[in-house]
Parts: sequence; C-alpha cells; structure tokens
Amino acid sequence: MAAAGTGSYTIGIDYGTNSVRAVVVNCADGRVAGTHVFEYPSGDHGVLLQAGDPHLARQNPADYLEGLRASVTGALAVADGQPGFSRERIIGIGVDTTGSTPLPIDATARPLALDPLWARNLAAHAWLWKDHSSADEAAAITEMAAKHAPEYLAPIGGTYSSEWWWSKIWHCLNVAPDVFDGAESWVELADFVPAVLAGVTRPRDIVRSVCAAGHKAMYSEAWGGLPAASFLERLHPKLAALRGRLYDKAWPPGRPAGRLSAAWAETLGVPAGIAIAMGGFDAHYGAVGSGIQTGTFVKIVGTSTCDCAIAPESDRIADIPGICGIVKGSIMPGYYGIEAGQSAVGDILKWWVETVCQGGEDLHAKLSADAARLAPGQSGLLALDWNNGNRTILVDPRLTGVILGQTLHTTRAEVYRALIEATAFGARAIIERIREYGVAIDRVVCCGGIAEKNDLFMQIYADVIGQPMLIAGSPQTPALGAAVSAAVTAGAGAAGYATWREAQQRMTSLKDKRFTPDRAAHRVYNELYGMYRELHDAFGGVPGARADFGTIMKRLLALRQRVMESGESPEPSELPRLAVN
Amino acid sequence: MAAAGTGSYTIGIDYGTNSVRAVVVNCADGRVAGTHVFEYPSGDHGVLLQAGDPHLARQNPADYLEGLRASVTGALAVADGQPGFSRERIIGIGVDTTGSTPLPIDATARPLALDPLWARNLAAHAWLWKDHSSADEAAAITEMAAKHAPEYLAPIGGTYSSEWWWSKIWHCLNVAPDVFDGAESWVELADFVPAVLAGVTRPRDIVRSVCAAGHKAMYSEAWGGLPAASFLERLHPKLAALRGRLYDKAWPPGRPAGRLSAAWAETLGVPAGIAIAMGGFDAHYGAVGSGIQTGTFVKIVGTSTCDCAIAPESDRIADIPGICGIVKGSIMPGYYGIEAGQSAVGDILKWWVETVCQGGEDLHAKLSADAARLAPGQSGLLALDWNNGNRTILVDPRLTGVILGQTLHTTRAEVYRALIEATAFGARAIIERIREYGVAIDRVVCCGGIAEKNDLFMQIYADVIGQPMLIAGSPQTPALGAAVSAAVTAGAGAAGYATWREAQQRMTSLKDKRFTPDRAAHRVYNELYGMYRELHDAFGGVPGARADFGTIMKRLLALRQRVMESGESPEPSELPRLAVN
Repeated sequence: MAAAGTGSYTIGIDYGTNSVRAVVVNCADGRVAGTHVFEYPSGDHGVLLQAGDPHLARQNPADYLEGLRASVTGALAVADGQPGFSRERIIGIGVDTTGSTPLPIDATARPLALDPLWARNLAAHAWLWKDHSSADEAAAITEMAAKHAPEYLAPIGGTYSSEWWWSKIWHCLNVAPDVFDGAESWVELADFVPAVLAGVTRPRDIVRSVCAAGHKAMYSEAWGGLPAASFLERLHPKLAALRGRLYDKAWPPGRPAGRLSAAWAETLGVPAGIAIAMGGFDAHYGAVGSGIQTGTFVKIVGTSTCDCAIAPESDRIADIPGICGIVKGSIMPGYYGIEAGQSAVGDILKWWVETVCQGGEDLHAKLSADAARLAPGQSGLLALDWNNGNRTILVDPRLTGVILGQTLHTTRAEVYRALIEATAFGARAIIERIREYGVAIDRVVCCGGIAEKNDLFMQIYADVIGQPMLIAGSPQTPALGAAVSAAVTAGAGAAGYATWREAQQRMTSLKDKRFTPDRAAHRVYNELYGMYRELHDAFGGVPGARADFGTIMKRLLALRQRVMESGESPEPSELPRLAVN
Repeated sequence: MAAAGTGSYTIGIDYGTNSVRAVVVNCADGRVAGTHVFEYPSGDHGVLLQAGDPHLARQNPADYLEGLRASVTGALAVADGQPGFSRERIIGIGVDTTGSTPLPIDATARPLALDPLWARNLAAHAWLWKDHSSADEAAAITEMAAKHAPEYLAPIGGTYSSEWWWSKIWHCLNVAPDVFDGAESWVELADFVPAVLAGVTRPRDIVRSVCAAGHKAMYSEAWGGLPAASFLERLHPKLAALRGRLYDKAWPPGRPAGRLSAAWAETLGVPAGIAIAMGGFDAHYGAVGSGIQTGTFVKIVGTSTCDCAIAPESDRIADIPGICGIVKGSIMPGYYGIEAGQSAVGDILKWWVETVCQGGEDLHAKLSADAARLAPGQSGLLALDWNNGNRTILVDPRLTGVILGQTLHTTRAEVYRALIEATAFGARAIIERIREYGVAIDRVVCCGGIAEKNDLFMQIYADVIGQPMLIAGSPQTPALGAAVSAAVTAGAGAAGYATWREAQQRMTSLKDKRFTPDRAAHRVYNELYGMYRELHDAFGGVPGARADFGTIMKRLLALRQRVMESGESPEPSELPRLAVN
C-alpha cells in the first residue's frame, strides 16, 4: 500500500472579502497543482454599500455561487495540465470563509437574496464580517449577558461584538423585520458553502461548524448549545423562536459536512460523493495551513491581524481576560482553539502612507527602507496602535491612536517605524497575556501579505517579541488549511490522512527565511515596551494602571541619546537631530 | 505751533534672523514713507552653521553694518519720492533686534569678527538667539542660581536658557578660550547697533538697554545690576573678571542711546546729531508698535510666538511661575515688561505640511481651507504643541509633541486643525497664568505673518481664548515700535512726542478686520481645553496633576458625536466617519 496521501488531491476554497480563491493541492506534499481567483462582481469589489451608512457592508450570495463554480473550474483547468494529476484523484473539498458572515435562507436553504422578491433589499443579502451596523444590539447583548448569563461572555473575551451573528440577526429584525420574518433560518457563510456542495435543501440539515458557532454565536456544550431560549427571549421573542429553526449541535472539523452532490460534481467536473470538510473561518484554517500545533502562535498579518493558538483539551484552560475566543474544537478536534487579533495593523501603515503621506506602493517601500536605517529607540517616538480600537487584550473599539515624542525634525519614516513598533508591542501584549494564563507559546509562525513582503516589519516583530519569526511556506494558508482538512476528512481509507499531525507534516511547510531577534535591539525594545504598557494600560483604562507621564517624554529622549551614543545606529551622520529650545 | 509729530519722520530698523529692514515712518500718523530690506549675505540666509553641530547658529557682524547702511539708504531712497518728505525732517532712529544675540568686541568696541585675525573663528562672531550650543552651561547656571541666588531666577521663570547671554559667553570661554581672552567686552546686538550709530569707541560707553540686560543677563536694580562677582566666580573666575568690563547700569527706552555720529550721518544721508533710541528686542518693540498698553496682550505670531504684556510699576507684580521674564522698564518706562512665548507655533504647522505632508504654500492653503470646514471637536483629535518643547508656562525644552485620537480615517486637514488648536490652547494657558497672578488682560492684539494671513488660525484663537483677536495695523510692528521709540526719544521739543501714549495713539493702529469668538465654538473649546490641560499637566510633570487617561479618548469621541449631531458642522455629509471594529 502506498504512503498516506500519495497520488491524491484535495481542493481548498477560500472565500475572502473581495474574491474567492480555489487551490488544487497535492496531498503528498502540499504543492499546488492549480489555482484560480474569482473577483466578486457585485458592489464595490464584492462589498454592497449604502450611501450615508459607513457601517453597512453586505455581500451578494449569487457571487458566492458563481465564485464557487468559477474558482474551482478555473483551478482544475490549470491542474489538468500538471503531470500526475487527474480529476479522479480528487478525494475531498474544504472551504474557509470570512466570519461572522451570516445570511438569511428560506425553507429550501436557499439565500433569500436569490429570490427576486428580496434581491433589492440589502438586509436579505449576506452580512459581511465587517458590517458594523449592529453596534447598539451588540452593546445590549453584552449588557444582558453580563447581567443574566455571564458564562456566555467568558470564553469570548467579555464583550459581544457588532461583527457577530446575534448582533446582526437582531439588527435585521429591528431594521428589516420583513426580511427577518421572511427567513426560515440563518446560516454562516462557512456552513453555507459546504451545504451547497452537499446539496442540502433543508436548513435543519446544514451541518454547522463549532468554529462559527462557538466563536460568534455563543454556542457551547457547557450550556447545551446556543444561548437558552429564555435568554434570547429577553432580547426579542422572535429571536427565541428562531433558535428552534437553527441547530442543536455544532461540530469540529474532521467529520464530513456532507458528500459532494451529483449536480455540483457535474458542474465542477470532479467525482461525486467525495468528502466535504466542515467549513471554517479563514484564520482558523490559515492556522492549520501554517502547521499550528501545541506551542505554536500563528499570526495572519494583513490589514488587521488574526492570531491563533491551540491547547490540548486535556489541559485545563481558564478563560483568558481579553482573549476574544477560546472554543473547544474550533481549529482542530481535541484542542481548544484560541483566537485573538489586532483590529488594525497593515491598515495603520496604509493610513500613514496613503491617507497622510498620500503615497502608494513606492512610498511604502521608500519609508520601509528609510525606517530600516533607524535604530530601535532612535526616533524618540512611541505610538499606540489603536486607530481602529483595540480588539485584544482591551476589547474596546472606542480607543484611538496616539503618537508621542514628535519634534520639529520628526520624519515620515520615523513615524512609519513607530507605527510598526506599536503594532509589534500590541502583538507582544497578546502573547504575554496568553502565556500568563498557562498556554505555552514557543514558536511564532506568520503568514499573510505583510509577512511575505515586509522584512523590516518582520525583523521588528522578532526584536520586540524576542522570538524568531517564522513564515508559513504557503502564501495561501487558509485555502491550504481547508485542503488539509479535506484530506483528513476523506481519511486514510480514501488515500487521505488518518491524523491532522500527519497531514500537516506532509502538506504544510515553513519558508527557509526566518527573522531572528537581535539581542541589543530586544533590550531596547524591552524598555520601549515597558513605556508602551504604561500608555496602554493608562489610556486603555486598566484598573490600577500606573504611568509616570511626567517623565515619559524624557525617558524616551534619554533612550534616544543612549542609542545614538552607543553607535548602534547604522548611519549616525544622517540622524535627525534633537531640537532643544 | 503745529501738533506733536506733524511733519517729522523717524527711522525704525529691524534686525531679523535672515535680513534687516528699515522703515521711514511719518510721526504724524505712522505711515511708512519708505522701506527697504537687506538680506544678510553670509552663511545660510545670514546664519553661520557648522557641519555636525546642529545647535550652533552664528551671524557675521559685517552683515549688520552693511545691512545698516543698505537698508536705511534704500528706505530713504524710496521716501525721497514721497510728497511732504524731506530728509531734514528726520528726528530720530530706533533699532530692534533678535536677542539674546551677544557678540565679543575689542577695546574699541569693534566686533572681534571684523578683525582678520578672528574672522574665520565662529566663536568670534555674533551668537544668534537660536544658538543652542550652551545647553550644559545653561543647566549649570540654573543649578548654581537655584542653590546660591534663587532671586536671579524668579523674574525669568525659574530656568536660565541656553539661548541667553551668560550661557553663550561661558560656552565661548569653554570651547574657544582664545576668543574669550581676546575680547575686551561683550555686547547685545540690540545695544551694539545704536552704539555704532552713535560712534561709540569704548565698550564702557555703550548705553545698555534694560530690555536685554533684564531679560537675558539676570540684571536687576534689586540686586545692584548684573549678578554679583561672587556668583559669577562660582561659574568661572574669568566671568567674574568680565563683569567689571561690562556695565553697571542699564536703561529703559525713552532716553537716548546717543546722537547720530557725523560719519554715519554722512553714510546714511540724514542729519547728524538726531536722537538714537535705546535698542530693544524685536518682540518688545513689536508690542510698542502694536499699541500695547495696560490690559493689552500682544502676540507676535510666527514660527514661534513672543507674547508681551505690561503692568504699571505702581502695581505690585509678583514673580509669575513659568513666565520667562518680568522686567521693570523693558518695554516702556514706568511699566513692568512681561514676556512669555511658545517655542513653536508656525513651525509646528510647517513641520506637518512640509516635513510630513511634503507640500508647500499651496498645501498650507488647501489644508487651511479643508480644516475650516470642520467644526470644533469634530475630528476627535487632541494634540500637545510641544514639538520644540514648552517655553511658557512649563519652561521645559525636553518635552515633545503628542497627537491623540487618530482613527484610520483621520485626515491631514484634521491633524492640521488639531495642531493649530493645540497652539491656541498653549496660548490660553499663558494668558490664564498671567491673569491668575493679577495682571489684567482684556485685549489681545496679534501681529506677524500668521496673524496677517491665516484667518482660520485667528478664528480658532478667538474661539479658544474667548476674546476677540485684533490685528496690528502695521505688518512691521517691531520696526514701527522702534520708530515710535525714536519719536519719543527725540521728544516734543524736536517735533516728536512727549509721551509714549500720545506717540502710540498717533503712530500705531489696528486693522478693521477682527476675529470675534463664536459662542458655541468657545463652549466646545472650553471642554477641549480642559482635556488639553489634563494632558498638559500630566505630561508636563506638574506636581499633583490629575488626568483621567482611561476615559479621555471616549470623552473626545463623545464630544465628536455631540458636535456632529448638533449640526454645527457646516458640511455634515462630508464628515469623516468614526470607525469602530
């Protein structure tokens, strides 16, 4: 018998904010035999907007279906030309998506928006993860849960978000009651696509993932599934009634969400009946595709950051304050899935370069090169990375950015570097919080565009965190993770894998390039991080926070002086000078 | 007999950082009959720099002499064509300069730098006001005075500056002892130019102004003039010895610094023997030319700000903590001259527009126009105006800038406005401090480039301070003030004026244009100013400062929300939106 995975292929499909990507992956080594990206045709790069309401962000479910067909057939057309590939060797399909992205469906599990009756109503479309129109509902849910069911909030960091399932559905009920009443049920995009592939025609037959349910819908076996009807009744009687039309049980990945229907097998041109993996969120499958294991911290670094860790279910993991999700089985079965994140990372650099400096890619590159010539501590600047609030560990969207330490000579590149450093300090705060609560982190793996492209960024992270920064081998870790999940779901009997560990060892990899902390830089950053935490805790309203604001500017100047005198700076003659008056 | 001033003219000469300007002024009404500007030919726009030492800034005394000739003859050539003007009607000359700008002179009162022996030695040139190479000496003087003669520090705000007389002379002794030893004496530029015009040839014959002596050299009649030899001995024995070669007495304006020498009368083409007014600093004569009187606060707004007020000597004025100078007779005889200032105002806007946004005049205008469409409080931003430290009221050059409240949507124009507001809050802090100590301020008169050109700036100042902003009628108030001083010094008998009040009433004016506080804007700014003071006092190290950092970002967001809902904003549809995550 051939080794596991040999000769077989799976398909991973990644539903992003603007496009859907399919990859055909060789199960033996994780190599991509074919890939294709489909840009959503609707709205503004796939996002339906409403003039006058900047918080609204929806998607057209028709794009999902057309994207499913186009991305997979496109990727297969490329794979068809590869030696050794044949469509008969495809053993499974996995899907990852953005989330929480719920959509209303009718009694046949069909999106309401596909019905001409509802097509022009934005509330009948999919409520994209970044739709923030439900802020009031989120606050009310948090308040109600804090009062009547604090256990619901403990695993999700203490605050229910406007981005999440119940906030959105309740907001729909409040602003578009006809849509709410017209929907038989609601489904997360992550569960919808697998159900489509499986030919599910009744909402109750959709197999729901614990990933979406546990992180976004306050689902837990600890209290018997979704929040109690009595709790939902306090929000609105119709939400309590909806509960009965949703689901009783959600599942970790590994078991099939279904088998590929004949109709979709024909549409895509792959064997009917192959395994369909449980749907999952992009970050979670990205962690799988990055080779996550106990002790690994995976950072998907883009406009914002999504961080994942896992810990064996046999460990007793406490709720970790400020960590927005700890859910059994949400990343891999048998492990707690731990999710954290920073609400703006690349977006802060983009703000500085594009909105303030009004440059483009060239300026990003130039500022990055200029900033790389600065030594840590040399600019005298310190920033807080809160331009879009703080998701972890303060869980407070109403925090804002700070830049401190400017002189009349402060340059664009110095601020650029200070903003990268601020996000690195934010990342360190998350890692330290998770460690404090007993979860080991001894390996950091990054993926995403910034990790691939911005060496300065990665080196600063290594120097700030004091840990080598590793980079995932695949530039498409979510799709790869979904393909891994499909290989495990298919199982060894179908020429897939019996275990996640084996599948990851064979199908995922790291790049040779890594970023190792510089000891001297790390020492300087330890000092700066101390000052960052003073600002962070004080401005973040951490009870008992103590900051010495009266000396902080001088400590930054003294550090700057020391750094400049130590000659650590590569080009001292080009240093901007400290102005005194 | 004709009314005072009728038919007579005086000349005001203003020595700036980059050029010298002469104006020929009609004493009857203050109108300018002729003006001419001479750009200093030496160094970088008149400033001698040294590569590798950003703190060094010197000037070539030859530029002063050539500038004297060229500016005055140029202005007279213009005046010659004016109806009613004749050179015989010129009754006096007044001079204002930057300061503290001391220069070493030989036994004939000639600048050392004019001697070929010393010409190539930067220490032998004039030490320009903004030369900061003497920081160590300034700190040592402050320390020594605090210990042995705290009375010296009380009238100058508690801290001796690296910009001032003794710091610079002592630094010269430390780094260029040959120059120090080669100098018979030292003289402030403000006293040097009148002495040149008067043909003084011995250092002891130079008539010294209390303006320079009192504000920069720790001179006061209260302790018998300059600091005691025993004090200077503690700094360096050679400084104690120098004291005997300086001066015993300094004078307020009003008495002549001398009479125009025959040689200079011929060079300039004006009558010999006319009155030469006491020299004075540009800001002080600018206050005179702005019509300063009891209750008036004059702001000269440029790259930095110099603020002046006066109070009758009959009032008992306490030392005011953080106010860098309270000197009897330094602005006008019979009054305390009170001087304060902000170390960066226009410079902060310049930093933002030119260094960060990399634009020029056009961008200044565009950001100003965009910022004018924002309502107070609308940006959610709050800044500290400390990019060049804080001169008044914290007297701390080692403070740095802060910008707080950024989102991913924060625009250049919003920051531009927040920086203007920060300088306005700084201005308000100075006014409030002076009022707290019993000096009435019921009228604010601004002059300088920004006051003339930037309406947004002026309106924000009116709204923040809650007082109309008046604008001096002359765009050249320092030169005009020097001309007023010359008219008073000439006296009524020479067809000048008997009193300062009369001379000011006739020769100075206000523009018709004024900026009146908007009541609603002032209310919002009262709230923002409260938050500014929280940051100001905490970051400034004010003992006992209490700030609620944990709520400040939210208070700014709440204020923003209120402002936007109140519809005060002129173009709500164009408002940047609050981002939440």
